[in-house]
Amino acid sequence: MRENTARSSFVPVAPTRGRLRPLGLDEVRITGGFWARRRQTNATATLDHCRDWMERVGWIGNFRAAVEGRIHRDRRGREFADSDVYKLLEAMAWQAGQAPGGSLDTQVAALTEAIAPAQEPDGYLNTAFGRPGQQPRYSDLEWGHELYCYGHLIQAGVAQTRARGEGELAKIARRAADHVCATFGPGGIEGVCGHPEIETALVELARATGEQRYLDQAALFVDRRGHGTLADPEFGRVYYQDDLPVRQARALRGHAVRALYLAAGAVDVAVETEDDALLDAVVRQWETAVARRTYLTGGMGSHHRDESFGDDFVLPPDRAYSETCAGVASVMLSWRLLLATGEPRYADLAERTLFNVVATSPSEDGRAFFYANTLHRRRRGTVPAPDADSPRAESSLRAPWFAVSCCPTNVSRTLALLPGYLATADDHGIQLHQYADAEIATSLAGGHGVALRVRTDYPTGGSVSVRIDRSPDHPWTLSLRVPAWTEGSPAWLLDPDGARRAVAPGTATVTRLFRPGDEVRLALPVIPRWIAPDPRIDAVRGTAAVQRGPLVYCAESVDLPDGQEVDAVRVDPSAEPQDGPDDTVLAPGELVAPRDEPRAATWPYQPLGQAPAPTAERTGIVLVPYHSWARRGPSTMRVWLPTTTEPPTARPGE
Amino acid sequence: MRENTARSSFVPVAPTRGRLRPLGLDEVRITGGFWARRRQTNATATLDHCRDWMERVGWIGNFRAAVEGRIHRDRRGREFADSDVYKLLEAMAWQAGQAPGGSLDTQVAALTEAIAPAQEPDGYLNTAFGRPGQQPRYSDLEWGHELYCYGHLIQAGVAQTRARGEGELAKIARRAADHVCATFGPGGIEGVCGHPEIETALVELARATGEQRYLDQAALFVDRRGHGTLADPEFGRVYYQDDLPVRQARALRGHAVRALYLAAGAVDVAVETEDDALLDAVVRQWETAVARRTYLTGGMGSHHRDESFGDDFVLPPDRAYSETCAGVASVMLSWRLLLATGEPRYADLAERTLFNVVATSPSEDGRAFFYANTLHRRRRGTVPAPDADSPRAESSLRAPWFAVSCCPTNVSRTLALLPGYLATADDHGIQLHQYADAEIATSLAGGHGVALRVRTDYPTGGSVSVRIDRSPDHPWTLSLRVPAWTEGSPAWLLDPDGARRAVAPGTATVTRLFRPGDEVRLALPVIPRWIAPDPRIDAVRGTAAVQRGPLVYCAESVDLPDGQEVDAVRVDPSAEPQDGPDDTVLAPGELVAPRDEPRAATWPYQPLGQAPAPTAERTGIVLVPYHSWARRGPSTMRVWLPTTTEPPTARPGE
Repeated sequence: MRENTARSSFVPVAPTRGRLRPLGLDEVRITGGFWARRRQTNATATLDHCRDWMERVGWIGNFRAAVEGRIHRDRRGREFADSDVYKLLEAMAWQAGQAPGGSLDTQVAALTEAIAPAQEPDGYLNTAFGRPGQQPRYSDLEWGHELYCYGHLIQAGVAQTRARGEGELAKIARRAADHVCATFGPGGIEGVCGHPEIETALVELARATGEQRYLDQAALFVDRRGHGTLADPEFGRVYYQDDLPVRQARALRGHAVRALYLAAGAVDVAVETEDDALLDAVVRQWETAVARRTYLTGGMGSHHRDESFGDDFVLPPDRAYSETCAGVASVMLSWRLLLATGEPRYADLAERTLFNVVATSPSEDGRAFFYANTLHRRRRGTVPAPDADSPRAESSLRAPWFAVSCCPTNVSRTLALLPGYLATADDHGIQLHQYADAEIATSLAGGHGVALRVRTDYPTGGSVSVRIDRSPDHPWTLSLRVPAWTEGSPAWLLDPDGARRAVAPGTATVTRLFRPGDEVRLALPVIPRWIAPDPRIDAVRGTAAVQRGPLVYCAESVDLPDGQEVDAVRVDPSAEPQDGPDDTVLAPGELVAPRDEPRAATWPYQPLGQAPAPTAERTGIVLVPYHSWARRGPSTMRVWLPTTTEPPTARPGE
Repeated sequence: MRENTARSSFVPVAPTRGRLRPLGLDEVRITGGFWARRRQTNATATLDHCRDWMERVGWIGNFRAAVEGRIHRDRRGREFADSDVYKLLEAMAWQAGQAPGGSLDTQVAALTEAIAPAQEPDGYLNTAFGRPGQQPRYSDLEWGHELYCYGHLIQAGVAQTRARGEGELAKIARRAADHVCATFGPGGIEGVCGHPEIETALVELARATGEQRYLDQAALFVDRRGHGTLADPEFGRVYYQDDLPVRQARALRGHAVRALYLAAGAVDVAVETEDDALLDAVVRQWETAVARRTYLTGGMGSHHRDESFGDDFVLPPDRAYSETCAGVASVMLSWRLLLATGEPRYADLAERTLFNVVATSPSEDGRAFFYANTLHRRRRGTVPAPDADSPRAESSLRAPWFAVSCCPTNVSRTLALLPGYLATADDHGIQLHQYADAEIATSLAGGHGVALRVRTDYPTGGSVSVRIDRSPDHPWTLSLRVPAWTEGSPAWLLDPDGARRAVAPGTATVTRLFRPGDEVRLALPVIPRWIAPDPRIDAVRGTAAVQRGPLVYCAESVDLPDGQEVDAVRVDPSAEPQDGPDDTVLAPGELVAPRDEPRAATWPYQPLGQAPAPTAERTGIVLVPYHSWARRGPSTMRVWLPTTTEPPTARPGE
């Protein structure tokens, strides 16, 4: 790998080596469109919403209670509640660095002031352990989440350092990291945390500070895992990836968020230590997970019971867990692999996951969230109480807060740093990975300035225009990702001089001496297409889905004739779906008449050929983008739609 | 309903009213065949196995620890561990009454002696609550299981009373029941137990003792449930059926064992109080559950997370929980509904559940058990450690014991009382509900003795012969259940005089003046047949299963060519499955060649028509009875087999 010489330090992930160099949040601005709207809502509504809820449910108050000696009696929330305060701080810090005024800095300072006195002289900081009347420090590495909480504290500290320079929050984080190294380093506790997260955080702190010991500690944690130092829980040690060393595992497995955070940390360690074997191991795990354990939406995790990946091809749409945080973590992992390797497949998965998981979670007003992202909802749910937290696994409507509320702050920090995921640079030029209205300005090798302006109707349309505003006076290469979803449906590239060529999925490049005003255009076939699942996915055999550009579509009962539910929908994939108004798609299909009530249908299994054929009415089925589902009140919903092709119903000789 | 005048008191369930009168374990003997072998193993191996394990893991020792004042320190097992000692006692008591010697009585006495001193003067008995250093009595009705434990204690006491007359165990149980009435009766704690079970137990105690107050208390518990007296847990109050009153619910729902025990108790109350509305409510719930929430095996419960029923038609085979205890509870419910109504559909479900869930759980040696009964196992498991308890939800191989080990003792008590489920009587004659080699002797109205001898090769074959050994000198009616699974494939009845007639699913009767030596024969079409699922069950669309008589069949990897797994199997239901040797079936089908490894197959969703067709090799697929799976070591297994009919692969115009 080559070394990076970053022009900006205002980046979420700053590897010192890798195929691509990330651009900073001061180098990439999102100026309009799909993500700009969501980022605006995040900045103006979600940050306040999360802070207000954490005040209300007492998670911020925990720090005060710790200082005042009443924490053993007054503590609120689960053992990892501290981490959500830190994730909010991280979101605020990223956002503060992009905001014109200083009001977010004031909020960061106020929250930091609440936290700071709770840190003990040796750097220990956790409101759930260690004080009189509480369990001792590190007495429950399996479930206590102390190192996990440090991880998020450190990520918040790094965000502050990079957005505003090292402030009080960053100093708290460093003291905590020093405490971790002293306590879990060589000669210390030979353990790991039940929930990975500290690994990637320590590497980023090493990058931000130049301190080798943080990287060493992260590498130690990665290497220690998988040797059974954690107790064997009912879910098995696979739950927290303590079943197999990272280097030996074939697939991402166990609790999905844990698996993905660990993999992100392992990539970070591999990149910084030039450990190709470790990087290869994670690439192999990513490949297996993507080929066999990922939903069409990019969602990961198919078990509700332990929030885990299922076996290969176990991807039930109606029991999809697909936790929002797993989507966030998957994007984190893909971004790190993209920087390390430059391969567009990682940006493909990130795009899919951003549009269909991360963008699905928040409501339009940024004050309610999905925790789980099912692909099939059979019952209309009820509206969550606005002033009470909700069960996390309920997927009927977005809820304002959860008893376990990791997802809202995770969405918030992701939206806050999103411009950091759009583009990169290398010695030869600029690479665009995600499409949004944006302005990009950086300098290429030799300090030559370059500035681009991207205009697009993506993801509603597939027209991407890149105008060169400033350029070195020597040739360089503009690289554009041609999404994998264009496979079989050609995309086109127009040079500044009007030459038009078909481009295949992967990367399209234009190398030339650009002049200000030059424009490169990409035309992507954003049209609705039928998607068929691998026949090994038992749960969706005999169904098809519609994807339009990067967006997965779904049927929702609010779009069906009065009182019908989505399970009455069948589609006919022998005809093409068509664009409808307002981002909808009209799919050819039919509505199956509801069956008789159970007194008539007594047993749902019959000798083959003896079940009566259902009657159905031919109609167009309205489909909407999956990310927008449940915006119009309680509804049933499904992504994978049974096709009209019937299983064989006649028996030979009958 | 008419009143029952039971001839025998040695019955598991003794309603004072109902369409049918149960026969006692002294009136029905199973003499050979499928169930005789399993009952023999239960009596000679499983009872000892369970006692030895509960000694080893300390659940019996808990009672000693309670008496010795060290229970707060030394208690072992989960909060409901007492109940498994009681379930074992119940099994021993039923078995003791049928055994020639008295060794089981000695064991019952020894265990009773261990328990007795732990009962407090007011009748309270539980090793997890109420002593110094423990939580107070009834401080956690949601999860504490105190009333649940009493329920099993009372059932054990009733078993002793009916098998041997009221002994010490029965007296302990009565004191506990009196304590429950005093504590939870009018003016007492207005609560219910998070786990129903006390309801059915109290009704049975009322039946056994004639004491109205036990029935009143049971009715009170049934009516109290559904009014939100229990806290709202993460799974929702539906988990313990506290979301809706029993009379209002449409379907069995929430935790499957809880739902079924509650329903059994509600039927008991309804029968004894002549409450037709309550009985109708449970019948409606049973109908909905059977039509929409039951696996082909009769298994119930499709969620691992909360061991619960799923929504209608959510029946994933690979994530089937189908807890053994839910099978036991379902048979308990069906038996009560059969006695109340006389309708053969309840015996149909009981038969299916006995052969495919209850018989599946224990190993051949009776010393290992399935807790969950999946219908599809994708990975070969590992052999459970012989000396450690196992995770309950693991379904790869039967395990000797579990951390939550409700199932082994539940199977054991069911096998011990199984003859009680075979036959009934009414004023007109005898009804045979389940087929096994058996001898039946009772008296009909007016005290006229009747004796039958049943000989059958069931379930391997479908030939049932009933020989009359003794008969009143007036006409009476012999009723034989014609199983619902014969639908579409005729069954035949032969009168004693050789007349042969086709009989439809339901009940076939012969009314005549029988003479000793008369024989009635039933010929059931026990042949392999393809079964198709309701198209609303998304998880098995495009598949078929094989059933042969009451037995569900499955493919197992041990029967495939070397190294192949069951997910390579496709079947061709346009040709008939055939009988193979040793109870196997040979199904026409093919084996799909394994795909390339993940580096080649990168994403499991492709535009319709672009996925390459798999290559396959035509072959016969060996299927074995589901209850016998995993008897030959680690194996992959599936019941629902994808059919060779492919989804549409060509797009129009291409």
